[in-house]
Amino acid sequence: MRQRYSLSQIVDLESRFRTNFINSLTGFKSLALVGTVDAAQQTNLAVFSQIFHLGANPALIGMIVRPDVSPRHTLENIEQVGYYTLNHVTADFYQKAHQTAARYAKEVSEFEAVGLTPEWKADFAAPFVAESQVQIGLKLEEKHELLINGTILVIGSIQEVFVAQQYVGIDGFVDLEQAGSLTSSGLDSYHKTQKIARLSYAKPYQPLKEV
Amino acid sequence: MRQRYSLSQIVDLESRFRTNFINSLTGFKSLALVGTVDAAQQTNLAVFSQIFHLGANPALIGMIVRPDVSPRHTLENIEQVGYYTLNHVTADFYQKAHQTAARYAKEVSEFEAVGLTPEWKADFAAPFVAESQVQIGLKLEEKHELLINGTILVIGSIQEVFVAQQYVGIDGFVDLEQAGSLTSSGLDSYHKTQKIARLSYAKPYQPLKEV
Repeated sequence: MRQRYSLSQIVDLESRFRTNFINSLTGFKSLALVGTVDAAQQTNLAVFSQIFHLGANPALIGMIVRPDVSPRHTLENIEQVGYYTLNHVTADFYQKAHQTAARYAKEVSEFEAVGLTPEWKADFAAPFVAESQVQIGLKLEEKHELLINGTILVIGSIQEVFVAQQYVGIDGFVDLEQAGSLTSSGLDSYHKTQKIARLSYAKPYQPLKEV
Repeated sequence: MRQRYSLSQIVDLESRFRTNFINSLTGFKSLALVGTVDAAQQTNLAVFSQIFHLGANPALIGMIVRPDVSPRHTLENIEQVGYYTLNHVTADFYQKAHQTAARYAKEVSEFEAVGLTPEWKADFAAPFVAESQVQIGLKLEEKHELLINGTILVIGSIQEVFVAQQYVGIDGFVDLEQAGSLTSSGLDSYHKTQKIARLSYAKPYQPLKEV
């Protein structure tokens, strides 16, 4: 039996309860560490879970930066330098990824504070996470402030991708489960995945097949 | 050993390969069926995976509608009626959810075509999916066209939520894994989850605990 939570009940919820509750409702989330650097070469690393596909050609990824998430070093760095990285998180270092959310002072690099390794690649202006199995280098394309609540939509174009060939199928599908990428839910829950199936392209009145 | 895919290589990829590849990179995705109806009471149901948390107070959810995803009945209906629903997908009906992506004619309801049950609730103008364990009723707040590639960002405010109380923790966390909500990756891959842990709120120089 489902319980109904009306708008007026949601508004009246205790604040921390509401934050957990509402953050859970969008379902399982993408999970990545965003690597940045400022003009003075101070690196920064922050865990994000509001990340989404915007297009394949050009290859674009959207990301939401919350106004209430403390000093926004990540956004400042992205704007200063114009480049940033997304790095998938595996079970080997998800606790370190979570710990990057702590409010370290600006002069502290979360790479060092949590024990992850910045990896610099030729000709790319932002640091990747060496421990990550899927690394994406992005260029800032657009920034939109969403006036409804002050959140910022950051749109980046994919400049380069690093992933082991064994995870990339002949049709281009990247097997994130084999690569060990995790998903998150709510504010603080981390999950492995267990594949059910890939399904064929859906057409009206034709049965689906597993592919 | 990671393989490097540079921007020029990505641009040169075969189109279908690139679509699968780039769609995989954002990580595991939220997965929900969007239920809508037009002014003539014709229902529509469509699977979406670009859904993200925008804020808890007010409770806002963002969703990306792709311009290349055929006739956009979902968006037309949302604009006509002003209300829509998000319904989580479980292993019991993920194939039906996938099948809603087929390009049915406008006069066909995907509810009927794929065999899912529209559920009308008192005072809410859009249909829910009766089979879903987590149902969210939303009101359209804003629509933004992202000029970079013509995708549409739809922002809705949560009006009501229906979920069994057994899945809602004392701190408000909704246990989506227990509720059976699935996640997706790429264009067509469906996954269950397996919880690793919930972690305590991160503070500088303090060890994390499982909660």
